[in-house]
Amino acid sequence: MDTLFSDIVTITMNDDQPVLTHGYVGIENGKITYVGEKPPVESASTSLAARVIDGKRRLLMPGLINSHSHLPMALLRAHADDYRLQEWLFDHVLPAESKLDERCIAAGARLALAECIRFGVISCSDMYFHLPKIAEAVLESGMKANITNPLVCMDMSSFDFNKDRGVMEIREVLSLNKETIAKNKAGNARLVVDAGIHAEYTSGPEAWKACVAFAAENGLRLQVHLSESEHEHLACIKKYGKTPAEILYENGVFAEYGVFTGKTTAAHCCWITENDMDILAASATTAVHCPISNLKLASGIAPVMKMRERGINVALGTDGVCSNNNHDLFEEIKTAALLQKNITGDPTVLPAYEAIKLATVNGAKGQGRENETGRIVPGFDADLIMLDLDAPHFIPLNDPMAAVAYSARGSDVCMTMVQGRILYENGEYKTLDLEKIRHEVENYVLPKLK
Amino acid sequence: MDTLFSDIVTITMNDDQPVLTHGYVGIENGKITYVGEKPPVESASTSLAARVIDGKRRLLMPGLINSHSHLPMALLRAHADDYRLQEWLFDHVLPAESKLDERCIAAGARLALAECIRFGVISCSDMYFHLPKIAEAVLESGMKANITNPLVCMDMSSFDFNKDRGVMEIREVLSLNKETIAKNKAGNARLVVDAGIHAEYTSGPEAWKACVAFAAENGLRLQVHLSESEHEHLACIKKYGKTPAEILYENGVFAEYGVFTGKTTAAHCCWITENDMDILAASATTAVHCPISNLKLASGIAPVMKMRERGINVALGTDGVCSNNNHDLFEEIKTAALLQKNITGDPTVLPAYEAIKLATVNGAKGQGRENETGRIVPGFDADLIMLDLDAPHFIPLNDPMAAVAYSARGSDVCMTMVQGRILYENGEYKTLDLEKIRHEVENYVLPKLK
Repeated sequence: MDTLFSDIVTITMNDDQPVLTHGYVGIENGKITYVGEKPPVESASTSLAARVIDGKRRLLMPGLINSHSHLPMALLRAHADDYRLQEWLFDHVLPAESKLDERCIAAGARLALAECIRFGVISCSDMYFHLPKIAEAVLESGMKANITNPLVCMDMSSFDFNKDRGVMEIREVLSLNKETIAKNKAGNARLVVDAGIHAEYTSGPEAWKACVAFAAENGLRLQVHLSESEHEHLACIKKYGKTPAEILYENGVFAEYGVFTGKTTAAHCCWITENDMDILAASATTAVHCPISNLKLASGIAPVMKMRERGINVALGTDGVCSNNNHDLFEEIKTAALLQKNITGDPTVLPAYEAIKLATVNGAKGQGRENETGRIVPGFDADLIMLDLDAPHFIPLNDPMAAVAYSARGSDVCMTMVQGRILYENGEYKTLDLEKIRHEVENYVLPKLK
Repeated sequence: MDTLFSDIVTITMNDDQPVLTHGYVGIENGKITYVGEKPPVESASTSLAARVIDGKRRLLMPGLINSHSHLPMALLRAHADDYRLQEWLFDHVLPAESKLDERCIAAGARLALAECIRFGVISCSDMYFHLPKIAEAVLESGMKANITNPLVCMDMSSFDFNKDRGVMEIREVLSLNKETIAKNKAGNARLVVDAGIHAEYTSGPEAWKACVAFAAENGLRLQVHLSESEHEHLACIKKYGKTPAEILYENGVFAEYGVFTGKTTAAHCCWITENDMDILAASATTAVHCPISNLKLASGIAPVMKMRERGINVALGTDGVCSNNNHDLFEEIKTAALLQKNITGDPTVLPAYEAIKLATVNGAKGQGRENETGRIVPGFDADLIMLDLDAPHFIPLNDPMAAVAYSARGSDVCMTMVQGRILYENGEYKTLDLEKIRHEVENYVLPKLK
């Protein structure tokens, strides 16, 4: 056994016993090998763990999964706040993004990954350009990620799927990923490439069909933005006589339709209709709720409880930090729970355990990693985080689940581990060089953005 | 000069220059004596500061003010989550509170004050019982507070204002407070006693009139809960044919009516009407928005923008942490801004600077401390907090105001100072003994609550 967490409050996220007050969790070769309420029994074949981590005033739980991010947008943190969406996007964000070269993206991705690791995020589903640079950063960081460069084709008259830069970048990372998988003895790939369609309003039917065929051919999942703002939702109905979900569905997006048997992850879903929800449910699509970004840009609030009633898998995302402004998924857990209580008028909905599922179990399912991460169970990857319970806001610890959902914040994380490898511990980043990243952001990126 | 903050990003909260990128702030005898963009000029009369604090990667700002708390409810943190309000209150909170003796309150108040200090709160307006014990804890902690034991009289037939335990406790602390003021050479009292009426639905007109007369006689401000839930608001209309604000107003509550010339602080205000807002505006009442507690109990969202349009002073509160579950006012700042953007559909409303005002300038005004704290200006008390900008979620620091409103959390505070005295610095509590408090909570309070 490589590591043993000893006598630690453990949130397993297993329905049969979600909390172990005095938990013992053992790790070997990157996998969870032991979970119990008593120490593992020593035997001839079980040597003492190389490292025993004392669980006193600590809490162990599965690492969090950020199901919708734009990592390099960390560079645009607090670049443009308190603007209307159109002004924010067209006058501030897009002009700034047009200045970001590969080197900027490399720095931005590392900055964001450092923040994710610091705040206990072990995997994210990311959409951005210069994908090979993001892949490099993910591999270096030790984190997991499903990444895509989504299809954007504003002028469909010049559309050529195979010449699309995003598609070429996906192919490039795809070949890298196959090598990575081959090299990974544990059999689980940290880095996964998804197909991507930015959104209904930034491309058209021909592009969607080509992208779905490409995804099917390569066995990829697919990421898409869906009905984030009322404006985009209504404009689509005006253009096609159908909602974004309906018109995308008709053109092959969403699983179990036509050739595409992968799974789709649809971000935002603030304005989806009852019929849209039926489409998402039937296709086993994961809807990603991004409560803070949606509030900040006044986009609306996704109907999380209605989606869940239909059996839709709902996960959680930060969106880009330019509209957030951080990667703290604990904030999203709490905000998600609070908002659903408010909009339903019922404080019992989305209780602590269910809210935490959005960022663990459900996130894992959305990434196709449901048999690999999101819970603490023998055989799963050791993707674990430890929280420091020393601070007053954890006293008394009446209910560990409520403490995580309502009292905790990312900065309470004192250790982040992916596949048994510690990426952050007590202020120290083990894989990324934060000072180097800061220097690069301040001395290379910021001058470019001025 | 006792202390000089040197070359530090400074949020002054002064409208003429809210941010100093390279600020210098000097302190002497507990007061701010120098604020500038250059170091103070040395002269014969100005010796070098005893301590110079290097501002590299630090941010200085006024300490935050929590305008509605129930400090000892920290003992009930995560005691009852995800319940309906009535069940939460009558089946869980009140039975637990009935078991809290003086010793529990002493521990609970210290626990909460430690959390406040840790998270950069320098003053709070508190409502709870066993007031002399809370006063002791406040004085020991070094924090400021306006405290009250609010009038509760469910059976008006047996009402005797002078025999009310709360009133007797207020009188007791009031005499203590006069001595404290006399002893305080700076002339500013950290501890202030307010009169208090728990709420319209827990007492009646005779009690309100007596309480207002008592407040007037002693020159006290007054704290009250107002229209927190729709249920209580509608029940009042059914009972009196008037809203809570209207019936309280008719009976002397709110300033500039009858004998009472103090000022009132009204917590929650989720369901107040247009006419209620006119009453609050005309009486210079401070409305305390408690966004997280109100969402968590599904009470509603206060019409902050409408109140502000009428010129009502709106401040921020956590409410008791039993419905929160922490004292992190940075969370309230962000949530307040996000909620108003959402309910108005306009992402430009309550921008970062205005949102931070709720927890600084406006909070100070609500406590009658507007000439003493809430801004960084010469002559004011040195009630300051310093944030550590080392973590990735502050990189890049494009906009310090947005960083505080949207990226920061209480745990970023690395120093809390009240009247020039450091109460917390880099993990160390200078006035309160957190280990002793934890021991008392775990070994005395929790067994009592079981």
